Amino acid sequence: MSLLVVGSVAFDAIKTPYGKTDKILGGAATYFSLAASFFTHVRVVAVVGDDFTEKEKHVFHARGIDTSGIVHQRGKSFFWSGEYGDNVNDAKSLDTQLGVFANFNPQIPAKFKDTEYLFLANIDPRLQLNVRRQLNGAKFVAGDTMNYWINGSRPQLEEMLKAVDALLINDTEAKMLAGDTSLARAASKILKMGPKALVIKHGEYGATVFFGHNAFGIGRHPFRAPTLPLEAVVDPTGAGDTFAGGFMGYIASRGELTRDVFKRAMFYGGVMGSFTVEAFGTERLQKLTRKEIDERYNVFRELTHIE
Amino acid sequence: MSLLVVGSVAFDAIKTPYGKTDKILGGAATYFSLAASFFTHVRVVAVVGDDFTEKEKHVFHARGIDTSGIVHQRGKSFFWSGEYGDNVNDAKSLDTQLGVFANFNPQIPAKFKDTEYLFLANIDPRLQLNVRRQLNGAKFVAGDTMNYWINGSRPQLEEMLKAVDALLINDTEAKMLAGDTSLARAASKILKMGPKALVIKHGEYGATVFFGHNAFGIGRHPFRAPTLPLEAVVDPTGAGDTFAGGFMGYIASRGELTRDVFKRAMFYGGVMGSFTVEAFGTERLQKLTRKEIDERYNVFRELTHIE
Repeated sequence: MSLLVVGSVAFDAIKTPYGKTDKILGGAATYFSLAASFFTHVRVVAVVGDDFTEKEKHVFHARGIDTSGIVHQRGKSFFWSGEYGDNVNDAKSLDTQLGVFANFNPQIPAKFKDTEYLFLANIDPRLQLNVRRQLNGAKFVAGDTMNYWINGSRPQLEEMLKAVDALLINDTEAKMLAGDTSLARAASKILKMGPKALVIKHGEYGATVFFGHNAFGIGRHPFRAPTLPLEAVVDPTGAGDTFAGGFMGYIASRGELTRDVFKRAMFYGGVMGSFTVEAFGTERLQKLTRKEIDERYNVFRELTHIE
Repeated sequence: MSLLVVGSVAFDAIKTPYGKTDKILGGAATYFSLAASFFTHVRVVAVVGDDFTEKEKHVFHARGIDTSGIVHQRGKSFFWSGEYGDNVNDAKSLDTQLGVFANFNPQIPAKFKDTEYLFLANIDPRLQLNVRRQLNGAKFVAGDTMNYWINGSRPQLEEMLKAVDALLINDTEAKMLAGDTSLARAASKILKMGPKALVIKHGEYGATVFFGHNAFGIGRHPFRAPTLPLEAVVDPTGAGDTFAGGFMGYIASRGELTRDVFKRAMFYGGVMGSFTVEAFGTERLQKLTRKEIDERYNVFRELTHIE
């Protein structure tokens, strides 16, 4: 089924204890679409500048991703430079230049109006809501957000939450959004704000999906997927967006919202994220094969499976 | 099979956001033995003072625990007073009085010499080693430790680590012991220090068991058990010791060290821990039934199970 992502296609310069990069391809929509492309056909809506060349476009095309929704504007693409210390959960931003992204006002091309699965990557909730309204026929809509919008655009974010089926955020964001220090209580509160499903990502501890009352008719029991204990997290950039790509890509590939589909989607999210952090930027995703994904899925399953 | 625990039988006064207690029964060996008693016959070796009365002894006897290894001395039992804030992982110690525990020098009674499964709860590694040597015939020995010994009694702790089959510690302790910020790397380093199995407890995120090279002939793949996302952690005191009790109790009940037994032991550890935190002190464990344990085991299984 058709899966569309709206978000940043950008450039990053990253430093981690394992090394550093010059300006390399990044952005939430990039990680998302590369990950999702292993499961279904993916469409990207984004804005880029003059620095986004045929070389970058090829990264998407090599994975069969439809880039006709990527608008080119005069100027520079969004650029972020950051440094990770030993604790991979804390990135120190060294530089952020919005570039053409500052005026991003996503318009969904007419030929994308039949989109069934939609992911609203982390952008201004006003834009997320605007996109959501352009795709009223979508069957399943998920979104991401961050502390900046939770603190600074609360009313708009609350509107957005009423318009999505699922929200994917991390522990810190969930506690901040709910104003609660207990993750389970925070989940209950957020589910009352609108989304039927809430995926909370725990970094190296995996992720849990919580379901609202009567959501999808599949019961309220939460489900937790692990991550692989990795000795070397070379670059954590994009891990969350990659998780979302695996999660949404798998769901779109199945076309039905059963409990089993959600469970496997959580596992595929973790599997895809575990690859991304093995190398800088999108390097690992670009080289990945479906066979490797299936093999690691089995490793993840063995990690928690009891008869 | 016979399971023996050596550790503290003590009194605690606890304050959490859910309320506070006067002096109530606590101590690592108490939580451990109550949890383990649901799976196998348990023997306790500890020292207590005059404040340990028939009332406290009855808590053990009601669960069929052999208390003949609990030595009574003139004076007070170990006493700890602590307060938990919103973050249940951080306890603030308000008062610690060693009492008769200061001169604890555990001697294993002759009738306990046939012990097959031994748990060395968190005490001075010199004492742990001494007990281990008194029970040379034990089939499977596990131990716990803490930052105090990791920093202050390193050589003795390293000796202890060579003498145990399994070590059960938390994330912070594992990183401290290995001197590494990556949990997976820390696990590899600790397994080289002696234990064949290393259980790292992640608090609300569950626990992972890592295996050393050729350990028990069951392969090196780690295994992760979840915890239940709980809305109310009333009192986290003893959760780790309860986990250890469920883990060791189940292993002792099976009498063989297969991969399946370790996996289920990890789940039972998590299950037992999830009950303890529902009420203050040992209150929940005292009221618990085997039926409740089995039901929650199924909830834990459903939490991560994919076909």
